[in-house]
Amino acid sequence: MSSFFDELAGIRNFNEDRLTDGQAAALARIAKSCRRDAVMMTSIAGSGHPGGALSSLDIYNILLASANLTPANRTDPGRDRIVASHGHTSAGFYSVLSAWGFFDRDEAVPNFRRAGSPYQGHVERGVPGVEWGTGNLGQGLSAGVGFALADRALGRGGRVFVTLGDGEQPKGQIAEARRIASKEKLSSITALIDYNHIQISGRIEDVMPVNIPALWSADGWEVLECDGHSYSSLYGALKRALALPLPCVIICGTVMGKGVSFMEGIEDYHGKPVSGELLTQALLELGGDMTEFERMRALRFGPLPKESLTDNPAPSLDLGAAVIYTAHDKKDNRGAFGAALANVAERNFGVPGRTPIIAFDCDLAASVKLDGFAKFAQKCPELFIQAGIQEHAAATAAGAASVSGVVAVWADFGVFGIDEAYNQQRLNAINRAPLKTVLTHVGLDVGEDGMTHQCIDYVALARALFGCKIVVPADPNQTDRAARWMLGEPGSVFLAVGRNVLPVLLKEDGTPFFGAGYSFRYGEIDRLRSGDDATILAMGHMAGAALKARKALGVKGISVQVLHASSPLGMDASELAALVGDAPLVTCEDHEADTGLGAIAALHLARAGHFVRMKTLGVTRFGDSGNSNDVMARMGLSADDITSAVEALL
Amino acid sequence: MSSFFDELAGIRNFNEDRLTDGQAAALARIAKSCRRDAVMMTSIAGSGHPGGALSSLDIYNILLASANLTPANRTDPGRDRIVASHGHTSAGFYSVLSAWGFFDRDEAVPNFRRAGSPYQGHVERGVPGVEWGTGNLGQGLSAGVGFALADRALGRGGRVFVTLGDGEQPKGQIAEARRIASKEKLSSITALIDYNHIQISGRIEDVMPVNIPALWSADGWEVLECDGHSYSSLYGALKRALALPLPCVIICGTVMGKGVSFMEGIEDYHGKPVSGELLTQALLELGGDMTEFERMRALRFGPLPKESLTDNPAPSLDLGAAVIYTAHDKKDNRGAFGAALANVAERNFGVPGRTPIIAFDCDLAASVKLDGFAKFAQKCPELFIQAGIQEHAAATAAGAASVSGVVAVWADFGVFGIDEAYNQQRLNAINRAPLKTVLTHVGLDVGEDGMTHQCIDYVALARALFGCKIVVPADPNQTDRAARWMLGEPGSVFLAVGRNVLPVLLKEDGTPFFGAGYSFRYGEIDRLRSGDDATILAMGHMAGAALKARKALGVKGISVQVLHASSPLGMDASELAALVGDAPLVTCEDHEADTGLGAIAALHLARAGHFVRMKTLGVTRFGDSGNSNDVMARMGLSADDITSAVEALL
Repeated sequence: MSSFFDELAGIRNFNEDRLTDGQAAALARIAKSCRRDAVMMTSIAGSGHPGGALSSLDIYNILLASANLTPANRTDPGRDRIVASHGHTSAGFYSVLSAWGFFDRDEAVPNFRRAGSPYQGHVERGVPGVEWGTGNLGQGLSAGVGFALADRALGRGGRVFVTLGDGEQPKGQIAEARRIASKEKLSSITALIDYNHIQISGRIEDVMPVNIPALWSADGWEVLECDGHSYSSLYGALKRALALPLPCVIICGTVMGKGVSFMEGIEDYHGKPVSGELLTQALLELGGDMTEFERMRALRFGPLPKESLTDNPAPSLDLGAAVIYTAHDKKDNRGAFGAALANVAERNFGVPGRTPIIAFDCDLAASVKLDGFAKFAQKCPELFIQAGIQEHAAATAAGAASVSGVVAVWADFGVFGIDEAYNQQRLNAINRAPLKTVLTHVGLDVGEDGMTHQCIDYVALARALFGCKIVVPADPNQTDRAARWMLGEPGSVFLAVGRNVLPVLLKEDGTPFFGAGYSFRYGEIDRLRSGDDATILAMGHMAGAALKARKALGVKGISVQVLHASSPLGMDASELAALVGDAPLVTCEDHEADTGLGAIAALHLARAGHFVRMKTLGVTRFGDSGNSNDVMARMGLSADDITSAVEALL
Repeated sequence: MSSFFDELAGIRNFNEDRLTDGQAAALARIAKSCRRDAVMMTSIAGSGHPGGALSSLDIYNILLASANLTPANRTDPGRDRIVASHGHTSAGFYSVLSAWGFFDRDEAVPNFRRAGSPYQGHVERGVPGVEWGTGNLGQGLSAGVGFALADRALGRGGRVFVTLGDGEQPKGQIAEARRIASKEKLSSITALIDYNHIQISGRIEDVMPVNIPALWSADGWEVLECDGHSYSSLYGALKRALALPLPCVIICGTVMGKGVSFMEGIEDYHGKPVSGELLTQALLELGGDMTEFERMRALRFGPLPKESLTDNPAPSLDLGAAVIYTAHDKKDNRGAFGAALANVAERNFGVPGRTPIIAFDCDLAASVKLDGFAKFAQKCPELFIQAGIQEHAAATAAGAASVSGVVAVWADFGVFGIDEAYNQQRLNAINRAPLKTVLTHVGLDVGEDGMTHQCIDYVALARALFGCKIVVPADPNQTDRAARWMLGEPGSVFLAVGRNVLPVLLKEDGTPFFGAGYSFRYGEIDRLRSGDDATILAMGHMAGAALKARKALGVKGISVQVLHASSPLGMDASELAALVGDAPLVTCEDHEADTGLGAIAALHLARAGHFVRMKTLGVTRFGDSGNSNDVMARMGLSADDITSAVEALL
């Protein structure tokens, strides 16, 4: 088949104005063999989505033929990128990727949807050529926007192609992503909609009508149309799109199940593979046969293929010198974060070899303390992205940017950064995206705004995402250190900070606890004070109240140890057990009592077989709206409440 | 002021064609005093959003003057409803509600944003006249759609008015809600956009441009415009909107801070109250004075007002007879749910006094087993809502419907029903909405679809929502009973079921464990088998594997008790401790090991001071894509793994 590929070399990088008949024929020949492989994949697996795979297949094929993306350059920074938003068309995408040499079809075809194989049912980054794992619909365009923003920030000039299903067009997140793209004038991005008019429940016009061209147009995109199974039509539309100075969408007219006579236009094949006699017929129509099928099927019992994904590199950044806040400073943790971010961004800007920092805001820059960064970014506006009140698209775009050569920071109120965007953060985690999400105004500390704005589940939600760290600093000094550490980390980090000014924590000698000698170590449990009769284990905002309680108990002759867990998910169980010892334990947190620090401590100790009597203070209902101290007191989270809890255990 | 209200009686229920000059003047006089109150509220609280409150105030006032909504009928089923989507304009809405007699201004003005008061910073259902608590932007229109759908299902004929901010227009969920409304031809719903062009970060055209009329029009809405501070213009637009046979949006031109000279058009007053000399001036301009202000401020130290919200009533439904599945039946739990739902719906349909059941689908009816209900609903199409792939809007609409006289059921894959819509479910919980969410395909049981589709955090997320129950049945019999129980419950319930056929659990005598004598009791721990040496505590899907492990251990002479927790959030700690006793405990779940049943058990036992050695088996990373049994085995969740875990503890 190599002659076909030779014939197509001329259109690589869109170098020709139009396809020759020979090129179109070569593409069609390649597509036929890919269709055969896609059908075999799903039939060997006994599950999958052959209908959509065949519908999208020519779109994948024209992109792999003409984009600046090959097996040889697939990790080059300046490559073009393809994002498949409708990840269930995986069999189509995989078969075309293998035809273009990204991996061996003898590896992909038999191992599709095989436990332990990277060829998952929905496209995943473990497969070469897949830039972003999708599957939950509506997120792909946002990822493409993130890639395009990173490309622009780095001056790389790559193009981004996003393929989408028609059934997912109603997802609101797509509209959000469209608006970021058009506001940012991202002409490097091209969307291609696989418009076969069929979704699971029937024709899209019946299930949920969407005026696709009007909506994309109203959001500032140029709308083109083409025949999604004609290579000359597809190539022509792509050429027109790439020549325009604004983002373009190409509505590609397609047929569900294209290429197999009895599958075409049949919604049942959305999620059902072909089997039995029909399989024989399908393979015959596609130039294959059952012998090849059986050969492939036998390979399913061979060794598992390995995924190609490598670890995220550590950012190259000078993290600067610590800022030491003293007892006289009135500083909120969010402000300490903002100052550290602006400082690190400024000191690395323009230094060769350093990783650029790109920050995303959702209309809250002054509150989430991105304002300093925004001011810095006036000299490089491509580094500060105002995404508007569109948290779903912002979360995914920032996540995709974070795997693309920049340090991506998204700061937002906790309720938006992790509650509203939970599933976007979940997909970011699945994609192992090293996004730095700064959750501000967490806990009851955002008092007056009331229960809708009180993020009291930030640890619970981060805990439910594998591979994510969360840091909840106790004061501005620890925030400064944690923020700098975060920016240099290769992985995903949430930094959770409240709204109000927090007292600088001091040693018994009156100097800052997190002072000159301190450096942040993820997972470390801070021993703020020693004591023998009981332990208070506090998190973030509550450290100050814990120290107050210790003082009150000391007056009564009760000696209390105060520990602080800035890394609730990173604590080592045996270190915790050793620190706690045999004395009773009171945990306290500005977070739900059932799902945060106390729950983690209980599970750690239970697994370690280390038994101490314990009480867990935290949020036990949706909160009030009022002064933060009043709200905390009404929730039973004052220093007095901690004091009482310790006494009750003694 | 009562004469003004008398003069306005004629426009109640939109009974006049247009306003008289006298009526417009009366409304303006009322508005002036409301503006005074709104400014006082925020200034007494020392926080809040006066700018938007003054901008929206005339919109609230015309609605309260002309809608079929008064203090006397505010709980009548047939009333009109107002939803404030931009909940931060609370001071405006509260002041107008108090002017129209919904509560005493001496109660509301001083207690705004006071801890423990219902007059929260963002509108909440505890305040008379507030139909839906909002604050996280973008959700209000979906709530309005839910009310309109419930009105239609009940034939009540009420109108729904939704006020929205301009800054929230980019939120994707609004577009989703628009499409449900226009597909369902909900002409009873009217949206009013407070279009003052200002959001927190500046002019909306700069922060995130949105072509508001084009987008609403493309989604099938009639677009009208009016002067949002002219009562004749507002009333005229409302009259036009209500006469049209499709949903209408009225774009109301407004001015941020309207009515106070120095506040008008100043973005700083979005979130900052007036104080000092400026407060004196503002009150003067609004016909108030500092004496009244001080009188109100003094009331802030009086008794806290009470919220008006009452408990959700129990649905009136005949829950039918249990279906007993036997060992020969091949049934999946989702199918057992679907059959029970269709059965209960059918048997209550048309019976006077029964509560209608309305079900929401997001393009997955056949998979989530709503197909039986959909078939039943062919005779009453207003009971089955196909919301398309728009989970955010569906979640909120279903939530709002659930507080409005119907039993609302939303069935979706777990990853969509609770991961994608987590924040919508959080607002539903804040609104104490008794939604029944059926989460299907939970756990690793959706094997081949891979990690994006494996909902492994359903207990963790439900646990983070106060007031919500979650039920994870062990087999089709328990599912049938739990589904019927759920439909009769007055509160919020998640029902979590996997994809695959599950064996019917049997007693040692071979009869169904959850057989004829069984009725579901929320919180009950099922003792499937007794034993002395160790306890296995399983959840849902894992019960079968736990019984297999017990058998294997029995052969080795180890006697194991098997417990099943269908209500992981409802277990009683002391009951658990008593059942477990002193023997070692192994928990097993098709859910994250750190955040589900095992974590709950550890916390319960730690709080109870009941110490046993324990191991927690569960999901410890994002899962593979493949045959469910293979995926489970690779995760260490086979019967053999349970066996080994028990042995390791002995």
